[in-house]
Order: sequence, then C-alpha cells, then structure tokens
Amino acid sequence: MTENPKSPTKIVTAGLVIIGNEILSGRTRDANMQFLGDALNTLGIRMTEVRVVSDVPEAIVEAVNTLRARYDYVFTTGGIGPTHDDITSECIAQAFGLEFGLNPEAVSILEDHYAEGEFTEARQRMAKTPQDAILIDNPVSKAPGFQVENVFVLPGVPRIMQAMFGGITHRLTGGAPMISRSVTSHVPEGKAGGPLTELQERYPDTEIGSYPFFKDGKPGASIVIRAVDSNMADAAVKDVFEMLTSLGGDPEIDDTVKSSADK
Amino acid sequence: MTENPKSPTKIVTAGLVIIGNEILSGRTRDANMQFLGDALNTLGIRMTEVRVVSDVPEAIVEAVNTLRARYDYVFTTGGIGPTHDDITSECIAQAFGLEFGLNPEAVSILEDHYAEGEFTEARQRMAKTPQDAILIDNPVSKAPGFQVENVFVLPGVPRIMQAMFGGITHRLTGGAPMISRSVTSHVPEGKAGGPLTELQERYPDTEIGSYPFFKDGKPGASIVIRAVDSNMADAAVKDVFEMLTSLGGDPEIDDTVKSSADK
Repeated sequence: MTENPKSPTKIVTAGLVIIGNEILSGRTRDANMQFLGDALNTLGIRMTEVRVVSDVPEAIVEAVNTLRARYDYVFTTGGIGPTHDDITSECIAQAFGLEFGLNPEAVSILEDHYAEGEFTEARQRMAKTPQDAILIDNPVSKAPGFQVENVFVLPGVPRIMQAMFGGITHRLTGGAPMISRSVTSHVPEGKAGGPLTELQERYPDTEIGSYPFFKDGKPGASIVIRAVDSNMADAAVKDVFEMLTSLGGDPEIDDTVKSSADK
Repeated sequence: MTENPKSPTKIVTAGLVIIGNEILSGRTRDANMQFLGDALNTLGIRMTEVRVVSDVPEAIVEAVNTLRARYDYVFTTGGIGPTHDDITSECIAQAFGLEFGLNPEAVSILEDHYAEGEFTEARQRMAKTPQDAILIDNPVSKAPGFQVENVFVLPGVPRIMQAMFGGITHRLTGGAPMISRSVTSHVPEGKAGGPLTELQERYPDTEIGSYPFFKDGKPGASIVIRAVDSNMADAAVKDVFEMLTSLGGDPEIDDTVKSSADK
C-alpha cells in the first residue's frame, strides 16, 4: 500500500454502505465488511457503522447522506455494474445533488478496453458518474469506481474491490492507529467478567472486549485490548494476563491472530 | 422448524442490528446476516435493512428504534453475555423506555444451570432483561435471549444464535414467500444488460438481479428472478433463458444453488 500520512491523536472514522438485495436475502455472503474494517484499521481509520441496504434508490441515498455527514470517510460496495439493477452511481449523484452522465475519462478507458462494437449500451452505464467525480482505477476489469468528496464508490465483487482499494489508500488520511492485543485462556467469561469490569474502569482509554469460545470441549474467552497508546495497551494486557493467571487460567498473549466467525 | 402461518399477499419485512466492535474492526467475520436473511426468507419474511453498530449505547438505541418503527420484525445479535462490554439488553430497555433488572424466570434457569457458587455477579448480568420481556430459550448454553414487542434479542455466537432462532419461528408470521430462481450462463453482463432491462420492464412484479462471475477463465452471470407469484417467476425465467440462448449462451436453470461470497 502507498504511504499514508497519519495524525498522531485524531480519531478518524469511516462508514460503509453495502448495496444489494443478494446480501440481504442470504444468497451471497458479504466479504467486504471484514476486509475494509481490517484494512482501514491498518491505516488508522476506524470503521464505526455499516449499513446494508437493498437496490432501492431512497434506501441508498438515505444511508449515504446520513453516513457521509457523520463520518470522515464513506465507502460503498456493490451496484456499479452494467445491468439495470446497478443503480449506485446515479444514487450517489442524487445524494449530492449532482448531474449524472457519461464521464469522458471513463468512456476513454472502456473504449480502449473493449473490442470494436463491444462497448455496448449496457457497458456504457459503467462509464457514467456524478459530475466531476474522481475516478478510481480498476486494475482487474477496467470499469472504474469513483470518489465524490468523502464518498468512495467501489464494486461488490471482493477481489476487484480489494484491488481497487489498494489504489486509493494514498487519498485517505488516517488518525491514531488502534493497537490490538488479545489474551486468550480457558477462564470462562462468567468468572473473568467481574475482574474485567474493574480493569476496564482502571483503563478507561482502552477498549476491552471479551469474546467467548468453546475449544476442546471447554469454554474460554479471548480478551481483546484496543488502545491508541501502546504503553497503555501494554499495561492493560499485563493486568489482564495476571488476572487470568490468578483465576487458574494459562493465558496466552497474541498480537496478531483473528477469531473465526464460526466459533 | 415449527409451523408458521403465512399471509398469501402481505409483504412482511425485517431489520437486523448486529452489535459489536469486533465485527466493525474486521477481527470477526459476521455469519449471522446470511443465516437470518436466508432463514427469514424461508418463512416469507424479507430482510430489508441491516445495521452494524459499535458497543456504544446511543448507536444501539438509535438503530433499534429506527428499525423497529420501520419493519415488522427486528432482530439483534451480539452483546448479551456476562462481561462489561455486553450492553445490548440495557440498551433495548432504554430504547423502549422500560425498567431494566433481574428477570425471575431467567434467574431460575441460570440458578438451575450453574453449580453452587458459580452463578457469579458477572453471570447475573445474563439474567437481566427489560421489564416483562418474553424469554427466548437457549438450548445450547442456557442464558436466554428475549423479545420485547417486535424486537428479538439474540446472541452473537452463530451456533447458539441459530439454535435459539429455531425456537422462535412460531412467534413470526410470514407473508408471501419469495420464490427465487436463477439462470446461469457465460453470456457476460455487458451483452445481456440491454435485453435484461427490457425483461425487467416486462415483468415489473419480479426482481431481476444480475450477479457476475469469472469461471474457467470466462466471464458470465447468474440472473436471479425473485417473485411472489410462481407463474410470473416461471414466465420470466423462460424469457431470460430464451434471451441468453439467443445470445449464444448455454444457460442452466437452478432453483436452489447459492453463490459463494468469494466469486
């Protein structure tokens, strides 16, 4: 990823609007929320709210307008292909009150890409953007995304979305990056819960989360400590480790591992 | 699942509020949205909007109050365990303006479940509900969920959530079930897009969606036709099939298959 300037103390936030009936009906399992939450975190940007809406203009416009007023950045995924159900781009124009039409740069990219006669009317939909939108390069299948102010419009297909996101990180200014550590043991939440509440009170500038699991037939929990200040995170991790040890756990500290969804 | 009464024509809708910093940060990949979208669909209930919010009371209360006014049913997942970051139950009480405290029935269930001295103060958090909430049985780990009016409060751990959902289907009244068929071929969206727009106009009471893929190095798309009226769905499927055949595709009709998220 491109180098990304960071402000050491400001909290920078993002919202995500996932667009598509196929996600809501359960036909397709979304993969973009987790990727973006994680990738933004790395850049010092905190994903703070996600909305999944159907292919209905009012729903898309409402979500985009609410989130772009509330967060530093908004990302949308889905609905920018060549078919009639791809209505994201015109909804973004509507949300900003901008004209919507063929973008000369996008037309040029797609004319170059398709063979003579293959740049069909359907494909021309993919060359339309709100007026003066800044294009987002698509290294996989050419049809660009675009940016209007703080809103970044990306496709829904995960591998294309991810490739395009890699090309816009230099447009994003992160804040204080969140450090995340976890301490995992077989002490069940019901025992650790009381002491953990006290530790959360002792470290008000950390976020202490507890994520239960069953493994080898035994309950346990990962205690995740998140903080902007690494000394603070280290101190909280040490205290959580000692607390779990005192409760008879055999805790392990992990700075990297992610939980699976299907625990 | 328990038998579920259906109204033949009414559209019944649902919203989902997913609660948890771990989903937003990308640490955990949500698995509940797809399960509930699909399971509700089967009951004739259409998931119409999902919001993912952080462990912040205002965010939870706002999402629940907005969606419960807007949809027939609202489900929440996450944040009902025994630790300090489990704040969903008290937020639901706040959203409804209800008292929040120990629920005698929940206390009784958990007292029976835990050995003498093990029903700790932390675990007593799991016995607190808004006043007069109707409990939702937890066949896996006992700590119940609950229902207040049209809002159903469920845990975040997928296998427990799924088991508990199975026990509340008799409380849900579905509307007209949505029939879903798909027609898949290697005709790319850029070619099918124009004719598809015409077919969508010819069948305004169907939802025709197009989902592109790459397989065996070639682009293609699944055209998904959804409708309440099965005759209408059949007619649209036939026309989509003929259209794709005329464009040189070798389409296949599938009534059951779901796409994977990582196409």
